[in-house]
Amino acid sequence: MASAINADATTREARMNLKPFLIGVDVGGTNIRMGIVTPDGGIVKRIQYPTDASRGGLAMMESLVSRLQDFIKGEAGGIQPEIRIGIGIAGPVDMRRGILIVPPNLPDLHGFPLKAFLQERILYPIAIENDANAFTLGEGWKGAARGSLDYCGITLGTGVGGGIVVAGKILHGAGGMGGEVGHIVLNPEGPLCGCGGKGCLEVYASGNGIRGMARKAIEKGEGKGILKRSGGDLRKVTSEEVFKAAREGDETALHVFKEMGGYLGLGLVNLVNLFNPEKIVIGGKVSRAWDYFIGSAIEVVDQRAMKGQRERVEIVQGECGDDAGILGAAYTALKLE
Amino acid sequence: MASAINADATTREARMNLKPFLIGVDVGGTNIRMGIVTPDGGIVKRIQYPTDASRGGLAMMESLVSRLQDFIKGEAGGIQPEIRIGIGIAGPVDMRRGILIVPPNLPDLHGFPLKAFLQERILYPIAIENDANAFTLGEGWKGAARGSLDYCGITLGTGVGGGIVVAGKILHGAGGMGGEVGHIVLNPEGPLCGCGGKGCLEVYASGNGIRGMARKAIEKGEGKGILKRSGGDLRKVTSEEVFKAAREGDETALHVFKEMGGYLGLGLVNLVNLFNPEKIVIGGKVSRAWDYFIGSAIEVVDQRAMKGQRERVEIVQGECGDDAGILGAAYTALKLE
Repeated sequence: MASAINADATTREARMNLKPFLIGVDVGGTNIRMGIVTPDGGIVKRIQYPTDASRGGLAMMESLVSRLQDFIKGEAGGIQPEIRIGIGIAGPVDMRRGILIVPPNLPDLHGFPLKAFLQERILYPIAIENDANAFTLGEGWKGAARGSLDYCGITLGTGVGGGIVVAGKILHGAGGMGGEVGHIVLNPEGPLCGCGGKGCLEVYASGNGIRGMARKAIEKGEGKGILKRSGGDLRKVTSEEVFKAAREGDETALHVFKEMGGYLGLGLVNLVNLFNPEKIVIGGKVSRAWDYFIGSAIEVVDQRAMKGQRERVEIVQGECGDDAGILGAAYTALKLE
Repeated sequence: MASAINADATTREARMNLKPFLIGVDVGGTNIRMGIVTPDGGIVKRIQYPTDASRGGLAMMESLVSRLQDFIKGEAGGIQPEIRIGIGIAGPVDMRRGILIVPPNLPDLHGFPLKAFLQERILYPIAIENDANAFTLGEGWKGAARGSLDYCGITLGTGVGGGIVVAGKILHGAGGMGGEVGHIVLNPEGPLCGCGGKGCLEVYASGNGIRGMARKAIEKGEGKGILKRSGGDLRKVTSEEVFKAAREGDETALHVFKEMGGYLGLGLVNLVNLFNPEKIVIGGKVSRAWDYFIGSAIEVVDQRAMKGQRERVEIVQGECGDDAGILGAAYTALKLE
């Protein structure tokens, strides 16, 4: 018991000597994760709590502030080392100015000056990043793209996000909104996308896209297995159920992932031709279905990407899992100027 | 007469005092252009001669060397100031290593180590760039994208080229082959492209694409005016004839440019969403038909690009004309490390 306390104390002391002391925050639609990250990318402490947007975005942000304050106080234990905070958050973010453009599911936060709001309440330097950029930076720092200077990240979740690293730096563009990989147009006559466009990568390669393709197949009389899993209710078909059905060998489910992989492959072709990356790292919840979609994606890349660029790129799965967002947010704070 | 000689001498002396002394070379399919460029982007001397690839690529490169040597000797007049040479050349180039990947129309130069070849024969530092990157850098240095740190360039010629500037630097990617804007996939079921893909921007928005669309229309019994201009011979229909017909109000020709503009617009949407650029500069021979295609291109961008990114970008015509390539090549030499 005593030795455990001593070990704790030593760890805390060691932590205090690390400069800067990084806090990475991953504000997701389901969970908010926070981690204390050492300057060499070790996560020494993690907490997680459910995202509660039921009282609106502003209340959510206020709760984020108090959680963050508690986390800092608890961990820093009254001592004030050099602390920096990085926050990764969904949706287009004007990253230079720290303003939320169109946060999904938080309509009251359109145009919300998140950085200024946080900075008024928390005195330590804060960096704001789009969550997909944070994923990309996390995988580049400690994960599958370690050591790469030119690479792309893609997150396959409810939507499709992405980040682009060019010559070692994340691509922000003129307004801080670059890297919207989910909104590469693949099929100009395709389904409407939430962004206002048509046939974007996101309408095919996201959880929502998979659900849509499965429902369509069911409406045509296929996919009885998926429907059964969902209690016979078409509205209860989710990408999760399609994934489980694929694992059991359901043909419709397997076909849906193959089709999704084909579209993902077209998106990859565009990334390969435009960025000539060394790696493309794919993560996010939907990437658990890797074995079911990656084959058809790679096939399209092999057939269609420019030869020289194709030879240079490896398409790989993310390695950091749920930690990628925390790591990338912390990395952004580390690099804050 | 005497005063003219003196003026020349003074100019030469003034030039010699400028360090470095830049030579920009634009190796095009039709012409090779060379210019002496001051470090602030003034072109003080230009020469131009037709590209002669009839004896193969190697002979062409040997002739380039002797022209360059003469140009240097003539201009530097025996004095040896700090000279740097930048060369812009068509086709995918491994820009870091100075190797031609698949030079169009020069099959014997696939994989040719251009930089090493030139550097053995010319002692001054040499930088090699893809010609579309050179265009882009030229327009950023002295043209329509002056002062922009995040912008894209597109050249509409026989093919479609492009360059991307991110945070003030041209995007090379891991293998030096990034920025292939002409090979953004717009329509996965579209016509085969020279790159091996299908439905790339290049098959629609290039001179070859325009010619193809016009011939198709003629085969359907339209475009009698274009056919007449081309001496009634379908094989003699060129994008140039389509352009001239459009200027005279020919409906088929106008329709072809409108369709081409629609596809160009889809390409622009991808650039806007991925790069969040401040400007997109469009040049190249085909851009002379600006008034006939830009309206439908902008319409597609307005309808489909992400709002925040759309608001930030201006889509403009290049300002440097034929000088863009010389300027960009010289700029590459200026920035040589």
